[in-house]
Amino acid sequence: MKVSRRSHVAPFAVMEVLAAANARRDAGEPVLNLCAGEPATGASDVVRRRAIDLLESGDLGYTEAMGVPALRQAIAAHYGRTYGVDVDPARVAVTTGSSGGFMLAFLAAFDAGDRVALARPGYPAYRNILAALGCEVVELDCGPETRYQPTVSQLMEAYYDGGLDGLVVASPANPTGTMIPPAELAALSAWCTDHDVRLVSDEIYHGIVYADPASPAGETATAAQFLDDGAVVVNSFSKYWAMTGWRLGWLLLPEDLVGPVDALAGNIALSPPALAQHAGVAAFSPEGYAAAAENVARYADSRALVLDRLDDLGWDPVAPADGAFYVYANVAGSGLDSVTWCERLLADTGVALTPGTDFDGVRGGEWVRLSFAAAPEVVAEAVDRIVAWRAAGYQPV
Amino acid sequence: MKVSRRSHVAPFAVMEVLAAANARRDAGEPVLNLCAGEPATGASDVVRRRAIDLLESGDLGYTEAMGVPALRQAIAAHYGRTYGVDVDPARVAVTTGSSGGFMLAFLAAFDAGDRVALARPGYPAYRNILAALGCEVVELDCGPETRYQPTVSQLMEAYYDGGLDGLVVASPANPTGTMIPPAELAALSAWCTDHDVRLVSDEIYHGIVYADPASPAGETATAAQFLDDGAVVVNSFSKYWAMTGWRLGWLLLPEDLVGPVDALAGNIALSPPALAQHAGVAAFSPEGYAAAAENVARYADSRALVLDRLDDLGWDPVAPADGAFYVYANVAGSGLDSVTWCERLLADTGVALTPGTDFDGVRGGEWVRLSFAAAPEVVAEAVDRIVAWRAAGYQPV
Repeated sequence: MKVSRRSHVAPFAVMEVLAAANARRDAGEPVLNLCAGEPATGASDVVRRRAIDLLESGDLGYTEAMGVPALRQAIAAHYGRTYGVDVDPARVAVTTGSSGGFMLAFLAAFDAGDRVALARPGYPAYRNILAALGCEVVELDCGPETRYQPTVSQLMEAYYDGGLDGLVVASPANPTGTMIPPAELAALSAWCTDHDVRLVSDEIYHGIVYADPASPAGETATAAQFLDDGAVVVNSFSKYWAMTGWRLGWLLLPEDLVGPVDALAGNIALSPPALAQHAGVAAFSPEGYAAAAENVARYADSRALVLDRLDDLGWDPVAPADGAFYVYANVAGSGLDSVTWCERLLADTGVALTPGTDFDGVRGGEWVRLSFAAAPEVVAEAVDRIVAWRAAGYQPV
Repeated sequence: MKVSRRSHVAPFAVMEVLAAANARRDAGEPVLNLCAGEPATGASDVVRRRAIDLLESGDLGYTEAMGVPALRQAIAAHYGRTYGVDVDPARVAVTTGSSGGFMLAFLAAFDAGDRVALARPGYPAYRNILAALGCEVVELDCGPETRYQPTVSQLMEAYYDGGLDGLVVASPANPTGTMIPPAELAALSAWCTDHDVRLVSDEIYHGIVYADPASPAGETATAAQFLDDGAVVVNSFSKYWAMTGWRLGWLLLPEDLVGPVDALAGNIALSPPALAQHAGVAAFSPEGYAAAAENVARYADSRALVLDRLDDLGWDPVAPADGAFYVYANVAGSGLDSVTWCERLLADTGVALTPGTDFDGVRGGEWVRLSFAAAPEVVAEAVDRIVAWRAAGYQPV
């Protein structure tokens, strides 16, 4: 029987690494997992307590497709508090993680055949979701000279090369951790508005930045200020608030997409998880923010620990780790391609990293991604092992 | 800026009814809501206790894209226990509600342009999701002579009329509550296999049947027995286990769709809600089944109460309410179209029902859907009010 063409999604190389890591763990050998883009801590106590209180007093049914009003209001207020940007709660759509948000945003903004640009390297699910929806993905080759972020001149080129309907940006980005400076985001947004190109801004790592750890936003620019120009913001409770398993995220929408997203959400999702929504309101409490800030301080320590050892690691170049919890590093100096490098590293040392091939189909064979979202002692031990492994000529120590 | 053509989804008429109902409630006037396809009870105590225990001992992160092994095994075992059908846990994909399951199944099985048949009347999200994915929906006009269910001869006609790639069936169905007899499901499945047409069987109301309340399956046939012939089963914890807000469901997959669904799920959802998955295992405990059976016994009482009053209600014909918790009734005898009928009923009596136009774009103006999933005393009071309203000539009593 027929299987759809659009389901022919390239498997992630990291899945093979994870399978090997699990086999190793099941055989009783410890694994230091620096693959996952997942905080080691989980949701804050205040969120978990709220969830427990709710469960003790009964169960929660379907909610409004766009989310419960209290959470939409709390999210809107977060933008005033953190960025000084006024957001109408009516522009907030609560989603089933940022994954659910991308699906809704892409369905609402783009038809099959539409051309949507994004940076290479980048998060592979963008292109895989877009491709499954019949959109044509235009990869922009982004290198160190632009912090691995797209530029207006690249957009111009793509636009005159075959038209352009959308642009997806991520700042801080996965896998590089690099950020788009505020003036550059404004320029990209203005260009998009002038050319009727829909800007979708992935801001799921907002708050996890290292320039100014005293502020959740640091120097972070948000496309929330460009909603009236047509931009869409995607965000999530998974990273800053460490609530990956809860599957809770949100969209900020321009006026013209509010109705379409509402109608689509009622059909494709009914509603986001109810308990997560009600408990998620507590993430915006002082305790919720304090727990997130503690996590970010710990990531900062782990980040410093890795960046201090770059020479010993032999990684060059390394993308500037402005935010998120990744170091994206070139390992070509090893003489190994990144898939082999990761396979051997795991086999020889028990340390699991992600090959760059998952993020970059052209140059990813030279790159690996290290996630320092794991516990700091795990990151420290992993770095020691990689350094020793390199010193031994990429052989078992 | 451009909004996608595929996001032009027809709004549900029930949303206007609900908005009017909420306005009425906010004004301090009580509303008897028989709109929602949602059990009044919520998750069983054993599931909520399990969730509380999990939250007290920490947080849960991302899971495998196809779901945690313990839940996949529990779901597979449910088929042996309930239907005597052997299902390999590797064929189970845990999903974010049945909504997430439909999205995955449709993406994996169908490409844009593929023709997929379904019954009219039927659940509107099927056709709206399929249309958003670029599929051509072939509506089969189903009436009382076939219990509002599609037949092989209708499939033949659609097949020779322009080809056919898929068939979605639902038993018990929404809005009618009617079921497909086992021999008929076998005939539909065999025809689909012979013609390379993918059968997708919506079984989310399984267990909520009235022929034999002693067994969760009753006389229910499941397409789980046809997985090796290419069929897909969609199911959910929302209805039988009353866990709507948890957003948890599952697919049973034929061999050829396991890999595609796994790859798509990792990209479009990452993983279903973690707490729901771990707690959901408890739904398959003796206490979980017992709580579900109690709910079904209560629905049976409410159903009998409605069916006993059909003459007084003036509803004719009424679809045979074999299962689920709906009575789908023709109100043409009132001289009012169903949207007006529902609007006036709410304004005059405070009882909210769903107009048939949401389920049937051709004949829905003559039909309404009553959900008896609400508490029995609410259903009883609502029926009394409708009867009195009719006796008063469809005027305030």
